[in-house]
Amino acid sequence: MKQTPLIAVATTLALALSLAGPNTALADDHAGFQPDRATTALLVVDPQNDFMSSGGKGWGLVGENVMRLGSNDHIETLIRTAKDGDIPVFVSPHGYFEHDAHWHDRGPVQALMHEAGLLKINGPAEYEGFEGSGADFYAPLKAMILDGDTVITTPHKVYGPDSNDLALQLRKRGIQTVIMGGFVANLCVDSHMRELVEQGFNVVVVKDVVGAPGEDAYDAAILNASMIANAVWDTDQAVAFLD
Amino acid sequence: MKQTPLIAVATTLALALSLAGPNTALADDHAGFQPDRATTALLVVDPQNDFMSSGGKGWGLVGENVMRLGSNDHIETLIRTAKDGDIPVFVSPHGYFEHDAHWHDRGPVQALMHEAGLLKINGPAEYEGFEGSGADFYAPLKAMILDGDTVITTPHKVYGPDSNDLALQLRKRGIQTVIMGGFVANLCVDSHMRELVEQGFNVVVVKDVVGAPGEDAYDAAILNASMIANAVWDTDQAVAFLD
Amino acid sequence: MKQTPLIAVATTLALALSLAGPNTALADDHAGFQPDRATTALLVVDPQNDFMSSGGKGWGLVGENVMRLGSNDHIETLIRTAKDGDIPVFVSPHGYFEHDAHWHDRGPVQALMHEAGLLKINGPAEYEGFEGSGADFYAPLKAMILDGDTVITTPHKVYGPDSNDLALQLRKRGIQTVIMGGFVANLCVDSHMRELVEQGFNVVVVKDVVGAPGEDAYDAAILNASMIANAVWDTDQAVAFLD
Amino acid sequence: MKQTPLIAVATTLALALSLAGPNTALADDHAGFQPDRATTALLVVDPQNDFMSSGGKGWGLVGENVMRLGSNDHIETLIRTAKDGDIPVFVSPHGYFEHDAHWHDRGPVQALMHEAGLLKINGPAEYEGFEGSGADFYAPLKAMILDGDTVITTPHKVYGPDSNDLALQLRKRGIQTVIMGGFVANLCVDSHMRELVEQGFNVVVVKDVVGAPGEDAYDAAILNASMIANAVWDTDQAVAFLD
Repeated sequence: MKQTPLIAVATTLALALSLAGPNTALADDHAGFQPDRATTALLVVDPQNDFMSSGGKGWGLVGENVMRLGSNDHIETLIRTAKDGDIPVFVSPHGYFEHDAHWHDRGPVQALMHEAGLLKINGPAEYEGFEGSGADFYAPLKAMILDGDTVITTPHKVYGPDSNDLALQLRKRGIQTVIMGGFVANLCVDSHMRELVEQGFNVVVVKDVVGAPGEDAYDAAILNASMIANAVWDTDQAVAFLD
Repeated sequence: MKQTPLIAVATTLALALSLAGPNTALADDHAGFQPDRATTALLVVDPQNDFMSSGGKGWGLVGENVMRLGSNDHIETLIRTAKDGDIPVFVSPHGYFEHDAHWHDRGPVQALMHEAGLLKINGPAEYEGFEGSGADFYAPLKAMILDGDTVITTPHKVYGPDSNDLALQLRKRGIQTVIMGGFVANLCVDSHMRELVEQGFNVVVVKDVVGAPGEDAYDAAILNASMIANAVWDTDQAVAFLD
Repeated sequence: MKQTPLIAVATTLALALSLAGPNTALADDHAGFQPDRATTALLVVDPQNDFMSSGGKGWGLVGENVMRLGSNDHIETLIRTAKDGDIPVFVSPHGYFEHDAHWHDRGPVQALMHEAGLLKINGPAEYEGFEGSGADFYAPLKAMILDGDTVITTPHKVYGPDSNDLALQLRKRGIQTVIMGGFVANLCVDSHMRELVEQGFNVVVVKDVVGAPGEDAYDAAILNASMIANAVWDTDQAVAFLD
Repeated sequence: MKQTPLIAVATTLALALSLAGPNTALADDHAGFQPDRATTALLVVDPQNDFMSSGGKGWGLVGENVMRLGSNDHIETLIRTAKDGDIPVFVSPHGYFEHDAHWHDRGPVQALMHEAGLLKINGPAEYEGFEGSGADFYAPLKAMILDGDTVITTPHKVYGPDSNDLALQLRKRGIQTVIMGGFVANLCVDSHMRELVEQGFNVVVVKDVVGAPGEDAYDAAILNASMIANAVWDTDQAVAFLD
């Protein structure tokens, strides 16, 4: 081993200190990161009844955290502000078709989701029964999501956008930075954040527009975002930028 | 909204209960998951001096957690056991070349890593100065990693294997299940786990063969693994399987 | 430069000879390739009205070649034989939603397709007007494709399956070899073949179940398949295997 | 089936006419495509001894076509012009390590390449014997490729850049359009073109800086490029742009 450069010591100290404080300190300190408005989009992951509606099959998991954060209202505010400010809005929904029932081994949460019929769509050629189902968009957002301008990607199947057209759609609009939130904080939101970073996009996670299965899972998601995303903002910061 | 099926209620309760207990309960309970030995491999992420050696530029970040878990010894044990048992071993190293210095916006940890020269390689055509550098393999593992049998993927650049040949190499050997650990628990290990799951592989995370930047980051990694991976094991369970 | 090994000379001669003959000679000679029936699937790319129906918006491009080859009948035969033999059938359709109209630069064929409204779907949340449209499945195949067993992937957007869930769906069923055909031979079929090979699958291209925009384009497709695919078969060979 | 719009008929006629003429007519006609110099890069695929040097293990395959086109000189001209004009240069090499010898089923050309030891590297941790080998860069280009500015991606393994870091590297420099050529025209060059298009990049193929295994394979490559790429140029057009 060569000797460790001094800068590395300073660096790891800086990181250790960041982690010792509130866990968003690290990315928050990156005050230097300012997206270019002309190449920035808003992304909402899974804004669907199963996570946002009190009757949703995932509400038991995330509802308490969603209500504490006020995420449903924040998401509506962000989409409206983005549209008013001509910032493109992208939605990456989650959806399972009948033939997805035949998958071999699943991880534990995927298995539970499958058993519960979470986000199930009778498709994929025609969405019979989609209207008002758990996989349908949350009613207060539907008019904005279905306005013909919002880009609705094909449904993702696991947690990330690896198997849908999100990255392609972002690029065909010239997007470089994605401001994002949605459901579930440490699962699909985290996986979308990671995959977008792998694909070379800049990412800002908005910490009070998500929902997590418990506060530990929420803390895990925000800690990871503080290390991986270009910035972690709250709704007020996001509105100030999008406005 | 249609009415929530009873099974969904039961399911969310089951999940909520799992989460309330020790955070590996969820995947641990999936006792049903037993990989097929004939299509299983061991994967070690970033077994390099910068994370495993006390002089490494990342040791200040992960060293305390690594020592508490005994990860360095466990990794050596797992590799040796896999090789003795004819289970293929894959290594996905992390490495930056000179030209990677010109990247535009990075996230905070990527920026710190770059400033510290973490995992820097003078390459990529020939690795001058690689021997004994922070990017070189940890000395006690080198003979096994360089035995000509271990598959050493091309270096990954961000956190996941999205831009290297790991998935291809696993498939060209017919691997379906990956037993994995390495560095850093909530960054590269988590991103490798998520990407492999998106690619249709089964994943088992071994919880005491990782290193994290603090115990909160460790807990975040294991909580996510307990929800996403097919199983979370400790070294003893992994050895029992590989042996 | 080191001296060229003799085997390399022999090899390039063998390859040159293959290329001098009928252009499927190369892959045909790989008589050694025999897929494992238990891990093989049939894939049909774009079996939609715009390519298969005489009123389709792409029929002017591919119709003559389709009729010469008898592809429409062959596709029906292959799907029926696969289903009778319990071989899983996958369909990767092509489809554009309203929001895809806003893409920046397109290549020439993509631009023509967009101007013609080829494969346009009013979606993506509900497919209003899908029934009988150019993007709908070719009528003689619809009952088989919509039987609930066929895996219909989310629509691909460019030429390959890079942005849909085809690879994931194949893997979640344990598929290793894909027997394939469809439309358009040198565009989507070639791109699907290449991407599946990159992803580690074995591929067999069936040379008389495709349609190309002219015989030069057909020859280009088959020449490339003869070099890249594991084998090039005709319908009779495929039926003999699937039966 | 709904009635075919008139525009579709006109479109297919236009395409049919293009195809009837010299096979680059289609993309050439897209005279409207002008890349933005600030976000354009030059990419050379596989500029390695095995394809460019008369002693190379692939020279028997491509040499005749390379000499007819004058590709070796053209590539040198393009790289020099790009560097003089501050256009970033990317190289995506092809390389196989010892452990790649264990792959299961290969396609026919991959099998021949493996048997001939084409592009073999003794690595991957340090490249012993790389200097002057078939996988090394073609001598007249080496100083420019190894100048520390050229981005040399990790080696690709099949035909496309799906398993290396090319797309990531392009994005981390803000590249939107790729002007490209290299080896082999209908294999790696075509696969790189297709994958870059799937990833949302604009692509210009330079038709006299490639090498193909025979003129039929060359024609196949250019026909596909004329349909898929944003433009097909010759070296003079590329130099005029890069200069």
